[in-house]
Amino acid sequence: MTIEQGLVKEIASIVGEENCSTRAADLYTYGFDSSIHHHNPDIVVRPKSTSEVSELIRIAAREGIPVVPRGGGTGLCGAAVPIMGGMVMDLTRMNEIKKVRVNDLYCVTQAGVVYDRLNEALAPYKFFFPPTPGSGEACTIGGMVATNASGMRAVKYGASRDYVLGLEVVLADGSVIHVGTNTIKNSSGYQLERLFVGSEGTLGVITEITLRVAPKPKKAAMALAAFDRLEDAGTFVSNLISLPLIPSATELMDDICIRAVNKAVKAGLPDVQAVCMIEVDGEPEMVAKELKIVEEVARRSGAVTVQTSDDKEQMALWTSARKSVMSALSRLGDELVSVSLADDMAVPISRIPEAVVAFHRIAEENRVIVGTYGHAADGNLHTKMLLNPCSEDDWIRGEKAVGQIFDTVIALGGTVTGEHGVGMSKAPYMMKERPDAWGTMLLLKKAMDPQNILNPGKMMQWEGGIIRDLRYPCRDICDLR
Amino acid sequence: MTIEQGLVKEIASIVGEENCSTRAADLYTYGFDSSIHHHNPDIVVRPKSTSEVSELIRIAAREGIPVVPRGGGTGLCGAAVPIMGGMVMDLTRMNEIKKVRVNDLYCVTQAGVVYDRLNEALAPYKFFFPPTPGSGEACTIGGMVATNASGMRAVKYGASRDYVLGLEVVLADGSVIHVGTNTIKNSSGYQLERLFVGSEGTLGVITEITLRVAPKPKKAAMALAAFDRLEDAGTFVSNLISLPLIPSATELMDDICIRAVNKAVKAGLPDVQAVCMIEVDGEPEMVAKELKIVEEVARRSGAVTVQTSDDKEQMALWTSARKSVMSALSRLGDELVSVSLADDMAVPISRIPEAVVAFHRIAEENRVIVGTYGHAADGNLHTKMLLNPCSEDDWIRGEKAVGQIFDTVIALGGTVTGEHGVGMSKAPYMMKERPDAWGTMLLLKKAMDPQNILNPGKMMQWEGGIIRDLRYPCRDICDLR
Repeated sequence: MTIEQGLVKEIASIVGEENCSTRAADLYTYGFDSSIHHHNPDIVVRPKSTSEVSELIRIAAREGIPVVPRGGGTGLCGAAVPIMGGMVMDLTRMNEIKKVRVNDLYCVTQAGVVYDRLNEALAPYKFFFPPTPGSGEACTIGGMVATNASGMRAVKYGASRDYVLGLEVVLADGSVIHVGTNTIKNSSGYQLERLFVGSEGTLGVITEITLRVAPKPKKAAMALAAFDRLEDAGTFVSNLISLPLIPSATELMDDICIRAVNKAVKAGLPDVQAVCMIEVDGEPEMVAKELKIVEEVARRSGAVTVQTSDDKEQMALWTSARKSVMSALSRLGDELVSVSLADDMAVPISRIPEAVVAFHRIAEENRVIVGTYGHAADGNLHTKMLLNPCSEDDWIRGEKAVGQIFDTVIALGGTVTGEHGVGMSKAPYMMKERPDAWGTMLLLKKAMDPQNILNPGKMMQWEGGIIRDLRYPCRDICDLR
Repeated sequence: MTIEQGLVKEIASIVGEENCSTRAADLYTYGFDSSIHHHNPDIVVRPKSTSEVSELIRIAAREGIPVVPRGGGTGLCGAAVPIMGGMVMDLTRMNEIKKVRVNDLYCVTQAGVVYDRLNEALAPYKFFFPPTPGSGEACTIGGMVATNASGMRAVKYGASRDYVLGLEVVLADGSVIHVGTNTIKNSSGYQLERLFVGSEGTLGVITEITLRVAPKPKKAAMALAAFDRLEDAGTFVSNLISLPLIPSATELMDDICIRAVNKAVKAGLPDVQAVCMIEVDGEPEMVAKELKIVEEVARRSGAVTVQTSDDKEQMALWTSARKSVMSALSRLGDELVSVSLADDMAVPISRIPEAVVAFHRIAEENRVIVGTYGHAADGNLHTKMLLNPCSEDDWIRGEKAVGQIFDTVIALGGTVTGEHGVGMSKAPYMMKERPDAWGTMLLLKKAMDPQNILNPGKMMQWEGGIIRDLRYPCRDICDLR
């Protein structure tokens, strides 16, 4: 579809010439997010206000053009890829923090505010928005809410959904609604503010967010526990939780990830089957006390070494080693790159050892390499598959392994996505995970977007909004190399 | 509507004769919840399983009979009153706690489990489900989820919505769906588990709930701060929050409530304009430290006296004084009873003093007595109006005051219900509070329950589901005295 010049002019008159493009380079660039998928949009717009978003959606509704909202473009599942063309709506110019009301325990931000910027604004008040996604330097609050993003601190502090008090949303007909409240709690009708969380732009475009804020912990400390058996790392986490002691982070890395970061960034991690990085935070005296308990429980659970530290530099090194896993994996083997094919599964916490052992077996059987890491105490496991992207055979074996990994996760009572969202990558598997519930999701989608213009082709299959077969987008990218 | 004998037999064959009634006494009893509303159902059923609920709803759908689910009947807004007759579905026989998996941080309960029973079952594991509703001895988990109930600990621990990981729900056609997961977080499609929270049985009947559980604090302590000026109590709470120090409870009572409990239960509270009961909880050393801070901040904020205690008996006395407010108010003046007319408003925390001052002014202007108390640190204020229930003039003045109180709350950026729900009492005001959003709620209701058989006549106005004028139910009750 090409958008005719008259329409381009009408759109440009809303956002300004400089915030509207049909140039090939822009369309190509905005055809990506951080996933393996790609498709060019027909036009890119960068609105500055809710009223501009509303006007744009009114036009899209009139013309039947798909609208794909986009934040930082850091999503790993293709939710921001305009798979059916249309209008990509880059919301990063809507980057105003409108209110910081810490004595009312909330703040209000536009959708395009970057996660780290918001926390910088909250820091002087000794508050923060806790989810801590790995992409915090670039991802936006709007994107986080639209995917229910979280990160390594979710086990103690919850995910984005747990902080959304209210939203401003532009619906499929361009009308603007305000859902939720400025109060810490409400029982005032359907909790639409929570329905829009994780809806990935398919029910409306989120333009403004009222977030609960949390007191920022005064101090943190970390322990790095090394295990000769992966199962022991799992037992360690279960033992902590059932004390109960809820750490602020519990990052697990398997041997493949350890080797990758030791090779790529000289992280100097112990050469073992699994390491677990535990962070505890809070008041200084409690941090010291909890760190001691963490160390004891690690040893009791079979750790071969346990290092602890409250030195900021040492903790930053460990954190950065963990954060580098995704890129480091691409440097583990010649010609192999790390691909987000199966990724971001979550299982009940106690099933983690079983899950990781099964992933290793599946990898072996399909002759692919799968590195596993993740947020152990909330059961959220990330895997990256190492493939030669120019080998069709690698893709075929990889995709077979992906199916088996997701089947395993579903059989263990888990979910195919803990914090990244569904997008395109997970769509068939989400439907498999929720055989009796996705029909209700589709019913709501049809009620709220009868023309199917809001991020069509995502999350679920329906007439006119077909999810592309997983394989082909991979090959598209492959062809580009 | 009378249900014909053949149908009664069919229904009885599902739940058993003893769990199905059309006796006048039962119909009358099940026509109440704890609100001012009343209407007889046509039949009462007490299913024992999800499959019985499903079969019953299939029959209701076939026959076009309203279905009104009911937990402990402790709701204050009429959500469980079968205002259009039909079938009241008492879920209290579905009282099995199906799983306690603290090392996975969740438990699974049937809808009819009573709040305190669940916490008794979690206690040996050192975990709990925190919301702490005032009616915890009687209210059910299903009812709490259906109304997004909470209580005095919401400021620190959140409301029911923040703990719902997954639900089993029977839809309007009798089909059973499973939404959410057994994992701490998920981004797997629309968060339907959160949409059903607070839907008051209008979108489906919740039969089973997967709840996140939280570590039970080891210790608690309380401070009782007395203020000569209500505004100082508000400043005190704001000062604490912005430190930040988030107490586990902050119970405010105005002079009317103080007088009432001192008269009715000899609580011995200081005879001042306002008292604030603060609870802090957690690890023993932190509790002691925080209690000291609370005391200092109270004095700095103008408290005339501050008592502190970590003695269980003393704390139980204070808590019981606070819990007795609702009934004590009925004994404050001759012939006056305490009525839930305006109740359960929430405002941004810092607006509490303005709100309470306005409530007092409105009461005076309308010559009614309004006692105000509530959970100050989450902005949740309860008012009770003292009326002579046999005086039509009292009702008229009371209802005028109610409208003014809700208008004030909406103008302060608040909500007409923080934790009780909408039901009938709040329906017109919820629509006023959310002028641009309730249309979307109605759209979803129509999509999910096109026949309008699930708790019809509640929450919103629509064709065929008219909300009764507030006044008449009050008079109905009045006529019965």
